[in-house]
Amino acid sequence: MNPEPRAARPTLLSLARELGVSRQTVSNVINNPDIVRPETRERVQAAIRANGYRPSAAGRALRTRRSMSIALRLYPTVDGVNGAIMDRFVHSLALAAQSQGYRITLFAADNAEDEVETIDSLHRTSSIDVAVLTDTLTGDVRPSGLAAAGVPFVAFGRPWGALARSSHYWLDVDGGAGTEAAARSLIAAGHTRIGFLGWPAGSGVGDDRRAGWERAVADLPGSTELELRVDDGAQPGAEAAAELLARGATALVCASDSLALGALPACRGLLADGRLPLVGFDDTPVARALGLSSIHQPVEDAAARLIGMVVDLLDGRPPAHHQQLLTPELVLRNLAPFAQ
Amino acid sequence: MNPEPRAARPTLLSLARELGVSRQTVSNVINNPDIVRPETRERVQAAIRANGYRPSAAGRALRTRRSMSIALRLYPTVDGVNGAIMDRFVHSLALAAQSQGYRITLFAADNAEDEVETIDSLHRTSSIDVAVLTDTLTGDVRPSGLAAAGVPFVAFGRPWGALARSSHYWLDVDGGAGTEAAARSLIAAGHTRIGFLGWPAGSGVGDDRRAGWERAVADLPGSTELELRVDDGAQPGAEAAAELLARGATALVCASDSLALGALPACRGLLADGRLPLVGFDDTPVARALGLSSIHQPVEDAAARLIGMVVDLLDGRPPAHHQQLLTPELVLRNLAPFAQ
Repeated sequence: MNPEPRAARPTLLSLARELGVSRQTVSNVINNPDIVRPETRERVQAAIRANGYRPSAAGRALRTRRSMSIALRLYPTVDGVNGAIMDRFVHSLALAAQSQGYRITLFAADNAEDEVETIDSLHRTSSIDVAVLTDTLTGDVRPSGLAAAGVPFVAFGRPWGALARSSHYWLDVDGGAGTEAAARSLIAAGHTRIGFLGWPAGSGVGDDRRAGWERAVADLPGSTELELRVDDGAQPGAEAAAELLARGATALVCASDSLALGALPACRGLLADGRLPLVGFDDTPVARALGLSSIHQPVEDAAARLIGMVVDLLDGRPPAHHQQLLTPELVLRNLAPFAQ
Repeated sequence: MNPEPRAARPTLLSLARELGVSRQTVSNVINNPDIVRPETRERVQAAIRANGYRPSAAGRALRTRRSMSIALRLYPTVDGVNGAIMDRFVHSLALAAQSQGYRITLFAADNAEDEVETIDSLHRTSSIDVAVLTDTLTGDVRPSGLAAAGVPFVAFGRPWGALARSSHYWLDVDGGAGTEAAARSLIAAGHTRIGFLGWPAGSGVGDDRRAGWERAVADLPGSTELELRVDDGAQPGAEAAAELLARGATALVCASDSLALGALPACRGLLADGRLPLVGFDDTPVARALGLSSIHQPVEDAAARLIGMVVDLLDGRPPAHHQQLLTPELVLRNLAPFAQ
């Protein structure tokens, strides 16, 4: 049987009436027990235990202006191979927040301006204490918007472009270090013609992943021809991979597992000792199922560190590491037998 | 530059002081404007617009006892093929909630008792209005626990076992209808020896998926031998599929995409016209990438309907459809060329 939606909860007032004491006395027992006579205190405490009364979060939020909640925008569902990484981040952030007594308030927004306005509104109404931003972009309007509104925030994603020297709290994963490690591992395996299959120029994340590959292959002649930048997805990945192999590439580093999945059939002829010279990015379930090599972002660690930053920021502690860049892990795998 | 964490927000009192009126007057303009003189009302409204004051959610929650927030437990990360479905549900529920003015409060819990206690605590402190339960189990202690605590809730997942006639609000997807449709489509393609690869007996969800297959194959002789129930995962799926094929199965219905992924290599010899006679469950990114047939749960629709139930429940409307069973969709695919 479903309960009535508005079942009576014990309040300060109902407890006081039941005990024949003043509302202030009950409040004192909760907030300042030393100023209440011991026998009254014990009687009130016993009633609190028996009735299950707990101080209202709303009342506490009014007094302290702390909601113990963190705003996080949820983006529209990406129904592809790569979308799982952000869902995993949301999940990890909620678990890390809980360990520090915080909860996550999820909301949707139509665009960056709407996101700032929603966070500002949640903050003004003491529904949240702080926001976590994700998906930082070149020309991002959110850091300045939230700073102007006086809302504390931390960002998962570094500031890109003109904002790069911004002093706000952020944490990111060094994607370029990942693609550089991938390309160097292919060089160590004897490859000298290593292609890069990435996203169109102009996105901070995509350009960073490309830069890592470029650092690794800078001394290999002809590498500049071995680069194609296409929309994310298996189909564009398949076509671009075929073209890069036609230009003489013998190995590929990709900006995503979607692109790597698309590149797989074209690369099958390059299989050596059970492993493809093909590396994706994000270590998605699809990569693990197929035995594709990929670059793993330490999402759980990132979430725990971001929550640490949130706590430092709200407690007004001097920031020890208020801008952090984590290194991803290159995961080399043998292709699953059924995909060979 | 990151803002100070406790930047001053306008309050009723600061607005009243600035305007030289009483706090009650400002409150009246917001809550009961007709009782305030027009020129005062307009002056206060202009100041409210200029200062960005918004009534505190905490204050409103104290008055109305509504937080406009829905509690949802987040389970530990399942790092496999199937975990994506619950992350997608969380995502869909947050988007559907937003469209009705509600937010999602995510929390973690160690077990069912801890979940009930956390929800009860959030409800007593007016941090949430209602809870959404997921992953309903045989012998689930949560419905009775929440009912006893007077917390409204709706469940994604029907009550199983002895609770099956429970009258609480729930919505579920008819998994058995999905496996039945899968088996019937294999019968229509000419198969007479259709195996079932499922989870150990005793879970409501797993037994339901098995029952659908059983309904479809009831008239096919020898079907009872063509059933194996193993732990979820690609490795158990691979071994069980080989065994079922050795027993003469020419087609398989699986309780999950993990099991189907494991079964894929053993089934490759059964490929006909580009399609495997193998059906998974949950239509995960892995199934889509490989071109595995699977059963798709209407997660977005389910989330929207659950939020509709929440609104009905909290508004005290008579429930029109307070127990709903949605039908999943059988998605037949040709195996991706690279996996053939």
